Amino acid sequence: MRIDLNSDVGESYGIYKLGDDEGLMSYITSANIACGFHGGDPQVMYRTVQLAKAHGVGIGAHPGYPDLSGFGRRVVKMTESEIESMVLYQIGALAAFTCAQGATLRHVKPHGALYNHAAKDLPTARAIARAVTRFDSNLILVGLANSFLIDAAREYGIAFAREGFIDRAYASDGTLVPRTEAGSVLPSPARAVQVAMQLVREGTVRTVDGKFLALELDTFCIHGDTPGAAQIAAAVFEALRVEGVELKAMLA
Amino acid sequence: MRIDLNSDVGESYGIYKLGDDEGLMSYITSANIACGFHGGDPQVMYRTVQLAKAHGVGIGAHPGYPDLSGFGRRVVKMTESEIESMVLYQIGALAAFTCAQGATLRHVKPHGALYNHAAKDLPTARAIARAVTRFDSNLILVGLANSFLIDAAREYGIAFAREGFIDRAYASDGTLVPRTEAGSVLPSPARAVQVAMQLVREGTVRTVDGKFLALELDTFCIHGDTPGAAQIAAAVFEALRVEGVELKAMLA
Amino acid sequence: MRIDLNSDVGESYGIYKLGDDEGLMSYITSANIACGFHGGDPQVMYRTVQLAKAHGVGIGAHPGYPDLSGFGRRVVKMTESEIESMVLYQIGALAAFTCAQGATLRHVKPHGALYNHAAKDLPTARAIARAVTRFDSNLILVGLANSFLIDAAREYGIAFAREGFIDRAYASDGTLVPRTEAGSVLPSPARAVQVAMQLVREGTVRTVDGKFLALELDTFCIHGDTPGAAQIAAAVFEALRVEGVELKAMLA
Amino acid sequence: MRIDLNSDVGESYGIYKLGDDEGLMSYITSANIACGFHGGDPQVMYRTVQLAKAHGVGIGAHPGYPDLSGFGRRVVKMTESEIESMVLYQIGALAAFTCAQGATLRHVKPHGALYNHAAKDLPTARAIARAVTRFDSNLILVGLANSFLIDAAREYGIAFAREGFIDRAYASDGTLVPRTEAGSVLPSPARAVQVAMQLVREGTVRTVDGKFLALELDTFCIHGDTPGAAQIAAAVFEALRVEGVELKAMLA
Repeated sequence: MRIDLNSDVGESYGIYKLGDDEGLMSYITSANIACGFHGGDPQVMYRTVQLAKAHGVGIGAHPGYPDLSGFGRRVVKMTESEIESMVLYQIGALAAFTCAQGATLRHVKPHGALYNHAAKDLPTARAIARAVTRFDSNLILVGLANSFLIDAAREYGIAFAREGFIDRAYASDGTLVPRTEAGSVLPSPARAVQVAMQLVREGTVRTVDGKFLALELDTFCIHGDTPGAAQIAAAVFEALRVEGVELKAMLA
Repeated sequence: MRIDLNSDVGESYGIYKLGDDEGLMSYITSANIACGFHGGDPQVMYRTVQLAKAHGVGIGAHPGYPDLSGFGRRVVKMTESEIESMVLYQIGALAAFTCAQGATLRHVKPHGALYNHAAKDLPTARAIARAVTRFDSNLILVGLANSFLIDAAREYGIAFAREGFIDRAYASDGTLVPRTEAGSVLPSPARAVQVAMQLVREGTVRTVDGKFLALELDTFCIHGDTPGAAQIAAAVFEALRVEGVELKAMLA
Repeated sequence: MRIDLNSDVGESYGIYKLGDDEGLMSYITSANIACGFHGGDPQVMYRTVQLAKAHGVGIGAHPGYPDLSGFGRRVVKMTESEIESMVLYQIGALAAFTCAQGATLRHVKPHGALYNHAAKDLPTARAIARAVTRFDSNLILVGLANSFLIDAAREYGIAFAREGFIDRAYASDGTLVPRTEAGSVLPSPARAVQVAMQLVREGTVRTVDGKFLALELDTFCIHGDTPGAAQIAAAVFEALRVEGVELKAMLA
Repeated sequence: MRIDLNSDVGESYGIYKLGDDEGLMSYITSANIACGFHGGDPQVMYRTVQLAKAHGVGIGAHPGYPDLSGFGRRVVKMTESEIESMVLYQIGALAAFTCAQGATLRHVKPHGALYNHAAKDLPTARAIARAVTRFDSNLILVGLANSFLIDAAREYGIAFAREGFIDRAYASDGTLVPRTEAGSVLPSPARAVQVAMQLVREGTVRTVDGKFLALELDTFCIHGDTPGAAQIAAAVFEALRVEGVELKAMLA
């Protein structure tokens, strides 16, 4: 058994610090690096690529809506063509920093509202997949398991990684409970370990209404901005190691 | 004898149109495409790369200060490290569109205040050259002839193109008369042809104070936002052809 | 009979010019001035207030979504509280320029996607009305006739102006046909005069599906970015004057 | 003897938190609230005005350069007219929130690079003073003691408050040692108390080169983003009270 642990990083902006990127890097295998639209700036991108490379962590682009003041968590009604261009722009911008530092760009994971919207809106998912494959058909597209993002990756013949969340609550239809609802974020290392264990052992997750949802997953997400994210990552990392699960960056 | 004709294009933004890119493309051999900081947006970048490719025009990145409201014509006091990261970001963003469309990125030309500041500030020039060579050491750096930008390219072993202006007035020290001064922009095709002819025949330009300045040049710039830019480009293109000058994109 | 002719102006940004504000000012009685979020910048706002004041045109704020690259024509999913604060911010910013020039702020008209979304989404409409009344309860809120914006103004006891469009096609439910559909914009002075005449004589407008829609209106909108906007305004202005309709800025 | 304690607050932006505004409010008498250009957003401005009003703290606008990614700490080369419009815009935007909450706008203090540049560049200082007096001639302009900002306020007949810094090192010419130099920020409550005491007792401050500089001051600044800002403010507040100094918002 093998799994990838990914986290959204590089979301600081100018003087504004967000997340404990240094703390997380020892316990994750893939890093989704913000590209300047919802968070991140050129200096932050440079340093985050450097940090990920130093830790041997797989590097991915983390494009979002052009909405810094809303941290990319608000849907902006864009056309497919606008989305494709916007995602291309952000992947390219991040690739400049991997290129300049002799690192490799391996995956793309949309951020926030773009991720959630693409999960249930096929045209958005297809626009993203098109941008990915046109930039580099060897990249991996990371999306919510059982969502349109995975379908779109399949359609375009791109490698994909099915993502699950161990620090967020699930609805019974497999979507995430929105952040605006109480109990949607589960900031406890113990709870995250429990969810992770159930996923690797049983392949299921318990939903907010008490059902069991079957999930085949390639990567677990740990949110860098959840309080205590590094502690959660460390606990899950250790538990999985003890369980004998191989922790490795996702494969194309 | 051989010369390149370059123009700044792709500087529209959203609903806002700027320049006559379509009109210019038939008469230039290199296009400097804005990267979203001083002008341009992902959709405009996509279409402008497409247009340049269709016309067989050499494609370059045209990075500027993060100053859309000032169109990149105001110096922002940034550190060398900030400049290097900012230029890397913009080159990468543009390269995504050449990459997606099977086109080739050939050169980088800084825009506006960044270009002028780099011409006389070596640390800025070096930061730009560093970004260029770290992204792709085969790119050509375009800079004002006899300026620090050319020195910096030489220092880093990058190919460079020495640029001259046929629609702007020169001071006797070889710098351009600032746009804020009257007579700094020469929006007449006849005048541009005259300047171009003198440059290819004598290798000199007449300065505002009546002196002759020797200039060895690889490329002439035609500003896309000068009124009648396409007419100027057409007239210069024709005159050079009749003169027997080979018009070709700059060489690495 | 009395009517106001309003137009969206001040939507240029930095080097980017949009609309023929000078041409329009002689033929309108109210000006909706962009506030820097979807268009406009501090310099443009200063000059547009100056221009409107010089022409004795009623001055209003024209707040939009924070989306310069989409010209405020894309819905951004914001909370009511975010909308209220954002509208307050923009009204205040514009009021600085009326205040500095001894002019009077008379009305507020939301822009683009914010206007259209508020027309059919009561919480958005109420957030806007709340911002208006909290800033100055004597301001007039301009909204699509028979829409939630008018309902919200009534609820908060604010004066309102019911707006109709003489250069846009109507659907039979009283909403505007979206700009993305062919035939949605009617850029002909003759057609606009015809629509205006029918509105003042019969109080009706003909919809795209051939029905007659009754509309009680206080103000007609002429889009400043419709091609030939000044010509349309001039033609409508003249026709209404000949008809004996009093042309005056809307009343609180 | 009487003094004002002021602090820059409301500099958070969207998801990004900066400074301990709540902790500071009990120990300051004037709050300089960011206006959205270098920091702050409409929601943050709303809440910060509310917080200041609840604590009976004098409210001021804190306009900065349009440079969120540089936190307004980088000079942008703007014309006087651009600066005047930009400052007007920001004052108006903040005034919308005092207006909406029945609070009073009392002062204006430029931020960061705009403050420092205006201290030594008279045209910039005059552009700011002009914006202030045109918005409301009863506002107080806060500037570095003995700087051009104070001269400009005098020239335009505006009330001014001469500011001194108790958490920053002074050069012997009365300017602040730049943040980029080591030892420029003095983040110790004990040190700040010592500096404050010497200022109220002797009217002098010790410069980095060991001289004593005479300073007549109306207000002390405590930087909200200095580590432990609330502790510094509390210590200074207590020490001044014990000394019998009256702590009150600056007077017009």
